[in-house]
Amino acid sequence: MKLYDLELSGNCYKARLFAALAGIKLELVPVDFMAGEHKQAPVIDLNPLGELPVLSDGEVTIRDSQAILVYLASKYADESWYPKAPAEQAEVVQWLSTAANEIQNGPGAARLVDKFGFDLHKESALAVSAKILPILEAQLTAHEWLALGRPTIADCAVMPYVGLSHEGGVSLESYPHIRAWIDRIKALPGFISMPAL
Amino acid sequence: MKLYDLELSGNCYKARLFAALAGIKLELVPVDFMAGEHKQAPVIDLNPLGELPVLSDGEVTIRDSQAILVYLASKYADESWYPKAPAEQAEVVQWLSTAANEIQNGPGAARLVDKFGFDLHKESALAVSAKILPILEAQLTAHEWLALGRPTIADCAVMPYVGLSHEGGVSLESYPHIRAWIDRIKALPGFISMPAL
Repeated sequence: MKLYDLELSGNCYKARLFAALAGIKLELVPVDFMAGEHKQAPVIDLNPLGELPVLSDGEVTIRDSQAILVYLASKYADESWYPKAPAEQAEVVQWLSTAANEIQNGPGAARLVDKFGFDLHKESALAVSAKILPILEAQLTAHEWLALGRPTIADCAVMPYVGLSHEGGVSLESYPHIRAWIDRIKALPGFISMPAL
Repeated sequence: MKLYDLELSGNCYKARLFAALAGIKLELVPVDFMAGEHKQAPVIDLNPLGELPVLSDGEVTIRDSQAILVYLASKYADESWYPKAPAEQAEVVQWLSTAANEIQNGPGAARLVDKFGFDLHKESALAVSAKILPILEAQLTAHEWLALGRPTIADCAVMPYVGLSHEGGVSLESYPHIRAWIDRIKALPGFISMPAL
């Protein structure tokens, strides 16, 4: 099973992190982002959005980091990470949407501007960050984990760009419960890190 | 089962549309958005993001339109809308992320600016729209439906803000396959519409 991967991508790291925590073996295929390899074959044929990561498992190709977590968890991990029961699964999916929307477009986008020079609207990214981080802080003040009272793929989807937010000029100083949650994730058996985290 | 609802919200319409297509009965609780009721109890207690829709089903509360689709489909609909098999489910989830990210922040955000006067960066919304619509068009040129060759919750999640894009100054004129797909959805048994669609 191949993961088309970029070491500095928080989206790729979501998949690497979850695979490590759940003991799933991935063959990493590094893609030279700076050389634009993600806009060329074979990546562009696997993912028309031209984005990383892409997972290739035999005949199955999955783009989008959240969908990759869903696939890996439901196919290869025990059900605690992503349960099948409707209410429990939906509780996790809520946070997958938050990861795809506010986290990606808040701290994730701010980092793309500062670290990689992307032409995105930095003010909007900071505004989205300022909206979502207090909500995360409140959730993690009342709960140790984002969903279900235990580690799930929700934590793997949301944490990376939150943990990297300093690279986009977003500080976690006033969010002690977010910082404690990141530390709890870092203490999970099998945890692997990424640069700057 | 209650849906805290705003008639003009494409996110609320996703839930109303899917429930209608799948024959699921929802009690609609209209929320006065202009009066800020979504920022007050009971909505804010059900969804700390202060956004609509929110689904309340007995003890279960779900925020986020994508998560609501997952819940309704996996609890109350036949499996064709949202299959449990990992590869099939992940194929659908890819498009749920696209709905939460590019569709929400592209045509969805452009409409929020033009129709409701939201202080969002219109240029960014137009840029995201210009990126994602050709990808949708290509997908719908090769396939009748977004995922699995049949209607799924992916179509219900992505279509509303695409179908409303003219309200944000985004034209579908150069996307004939997107328009044909919207017409296919409109022809599904049980289909209900919303204003301006």
